[in-house]
Amino acid sequence: MRYTNIFIPTTKEIPSDAVLPSHKYLLKAGFVCSTGSGLYDYLPLGKIVLDNIKNIVKNNMDKAKANEISLSFVTPLKLWEQSGRIEDMGQEMLKFKDRHQNNFVLSPTNEEAVVTVVKNRIKSYKHLPVNLYQINTKFRDEVRPRFGILRAREFLMKDAYSFSDSQECLQQQFDIMETTYKNILNEMGLKYKVVKADSGAIGGDGSLEFHIVANSGEDTIVVCMDCEFGANIETMEDIDDKLNETPYNELENINIQQKCSCGGKLVFKKGIEVGHIFQLKDKYSKALDATFLDSNGKQQHFMMGCYGMGISRIIAAAVEQNHDDKGAIWPLNLTPYKVCIIVSNGKDNTQQKVATDISNTLEKAGISNIIDDRVKERFGFKMADFELIGYPYAIVVGKNIADGKVEIVDRKTLEKSICDIDKILETVLSNFNT
Amino acid sequence: MRYTNIFIPTTKEIPSDAVLPSHKYLLKAGFVCSTGSGLYDYLPLGKIVLDNIKNIVKNNMDKAKANEISLSFVTPLKLWEQSGRIEDMGQEMLKFKDRHQNNFVLSPTNEEAVVTVVKNRIKSYKHLPVNLYQINTKFRDEVRPRFGILRAREFLMKDAYSFSDSQECLQQQFDIMETTYKNILNEMGLKYKVVKADSGAIGGDGSLEFHIVANSGEDTIVVCMDCEFGANIETMEDIDDKLNETPYNELENINIQQKCSCGGKLVFKKGIEVGHIFQLKDKYSKALDATFLDSNGKQQHFMMGCYGMGISRIIAAAVEQNHDDKGAIWPLNLTPYKVCIIVSNGKDNTQQKVATDISNTLEKAGISNIIDDRVKERFGFKMADFELIGYPYAIVVGKNIADGKVEIVDRKTLEKSICDIDKILETVLSNFNT
Repeated sequence: MRYTNIFIPTTKEIPSDAVLPSHKYLLKAGFVCSTGSGLYDYLPLGKIVLDNIKNIVKNNMDKAKANEISLSFVTPLKLWEQSGRIEDMGQEMLKFKDRHQNNFVLSPTNEEAVVTVVKNRIKSYKHLPVNLYQINTKFRDEVRPRFGILRAREFLMKDAYSFSDSQECLQQQFDIMETTYKNILNEMGLKYKVVKADSGAIGGDGSLEFHIVANSGEDTIVVCMDCEFGANIETMEDIDDKLNETPYNELENINIQQKCSCGGKLVFKKGIEVGHIFQLKDKYSKALDATFLDSNGKQQHFMMGCYGMGISRIIAAAVEQNHDDKGAIWPLNLTPYKVCIIVSNGKDNTQQKVATDISNTLEKAGISNIIDDRVKERFGFKMADFELIGYPYAIVVGKNIADGKVEIVDRKTLEKSICDIDKILETVLSNFNT
Repeated sequence: MRYTNIFIPTTKEIPSDAVLPSHKYLLKAGFVCSTGSGLYDYLPLGKIVLDNIKNIVKNNMDKAKANEISLSFVTPLKLWEQSGRIEDMGQEMLKFKDRHQNNFVLSPTNEEAVVTVVKNRIKSYKHLPVNLYQINTKFRDEVRPRFGILRAREFLMKDAYSFSDSQECLQQQFDIMETTYKNILNEMGLKYKVVKADSGAIGGDGSLEFHIVANSGEDTIVVCMDCEFGANIETMEDIDDKLNETPYNELENINIQQKCSCGGKLVFKKGIEVGHIFQLKDKYSKALDATFLDSNGKQQHFMMGCYGMGISRIIAAAVEQNHDDKGAIWPLNLTPYKVCIIVSNGKDNTQQKVATDISNTLEKAGISNIIDDRVKERFGFKMADFELIGYPYAIVVGKNIADGKVEIVDRKTLEKSICDIDKILETVLSNFNT
């Protein structure tokens, strides 16, 4: 890709309510823009990151033998009357009438819809378990949408629903999803904690939350320094006042007497919830009377699990966890392009040619890259854009191509190193592996 | 993939209004199901076809240097007040209020939204042309939704919008899109005609429609037997009565005196519109006052084109064009799986093993396949499912594995041929190429 072929509207003009780093940088670097309160458009760079996330999630869900589907975003209110959940959802569920005055909702979640799909279509225990998932638009009419795409009204969610014939089978499905979620977050290169949690309006128990650890997280969690353990703060008492008085960057300094069950030290952190998995059991299959024939020829209600993951929210969480005061620093598997090849002087045809050659070399090796081939922009401006957007590496093609050399810049450390042009591929690859 | 790992709820129970082949077969074969009037869920097989279509469209749009974005599905009504198009859209545009009593719509199309994205973000002719596209949900509140996913209320559309600094540049963008649409439909293996058309509510002129030729099409078009020419019937006079009297399968027999400009014979056909491209010129950039600085330093309104393609509709159109009285017959690049490996007797472990080996061989060669490994289902039942679902080829693993042989069934002709197991890959590939 070339800068001159892609729409990347970087800007300094951002709204005053953009205070979180992810909110600021995603707007400034032209990843997203807003068309209304809690409504976001994904621009080309944002769409690529979204697709990277979707692909990692899809591949891991498919590996776990879940089947991808796509449920209608507009769903009849009737489904929600059957489950009796309209009041629980409150005003967050957006209801409307069509031209014939029939009632519909913009799906905030899809338990009712997926049970309706499975009802009368899976008739026997022989066809269980089944896990159906989708990566689809959701809408929750938050009172006060804020923090950019971290808490938007329209957002992209991966929601999966498993159907089992017994508690044992449900537990197995749940465990597979727990492992799958860990694999997904590991592949994304994000630091996370798994937290035992309260199930809220979705219902069911045995639920686990997956939190991206970041200073700006909305939830305070207690995490172990040595293992993956985490717990939501609701489960610990008598510390609310102390926590409220403490700025988030000093949270870690609060001493916790208690030790983790592994013996490790516990500390407070802030977390951004990006995943939540539940054992729903027969809550919805009973409400919607969805049954199968068990091995004794008896009708039973499906035992269900549900497994949510905030796809668009992960974009923001990744930036919250990975940024500095200049901009974002993308993890290698999420970044829109792995390498930005900066032509130091855009008017220099030799530099442009060397940049193109390097791009082709990387492309052939499957390394996504973008050439900053802009002619009029100064080098400093291009470097600032590189730092703001946050590609993991830049290759600066400048005067020292005369000596057969270019400069590699590591976005995380901003350290520079000189590299022979004819060793560019191996150098880039060895950088990726450190 | 294996039948025992995927949710394919084939059924005989379909609603009485399902009269079109695509509507019937997609429901019967478990590709989609309906949750309300004009609302459809895509089940695993339907989702795979949808993804195949999306991928072909994306690859070709990217090749044409268009940039993928994703606009908010819920958009503020305010945008439509600015363009003055609320009345034109009529009741098809679904409007609603959020919890704060602000007005929104479910996007039926996105000219207003995309102009808002570009406005003040592309400031100079130097950054033109730009073509932004998305593959995203749309909603049109049809009075009488019908024909299944061919005319659903919620549907998936590819919509692209080009921005140019002159009529010449717009014409170039338009021509690139015309070529791209032909490439897309060719890659999908669909027979189509390009038809000069009227622009309707979208506005602009110089518009072209892309029709999939099929008996059940809603539009009557005049097409040339020798070239790609087609014309919408509105452009020919004095033939309405005759056409209305003629059943669609006899349309081709009506004699047309006029010849095509290429000298070819013209005939009447039915067409399903799957694409429509327009030269909007400055209609929306003027209405929303979106300008750029031209090379003389003067503010000019963008010259726009817009390019729609019905993604979910193509699934139905493909079946309308490719089916027989047993079921669908998928084109090779759209089919959920290219080959279905049928284990004739599911209880026979040797047959199961041979099927698995064949599946692995095909998989390694990148040929998607599904094993019908069901244990209890009889062979005739499995063949009927193969014919209904419409995978292009079946490989029947039966008794003659004792002689090292299997049977290959061509879905289109239903012809059978015997093949050596150790030559299976080359035989399948040679079938693909004929």
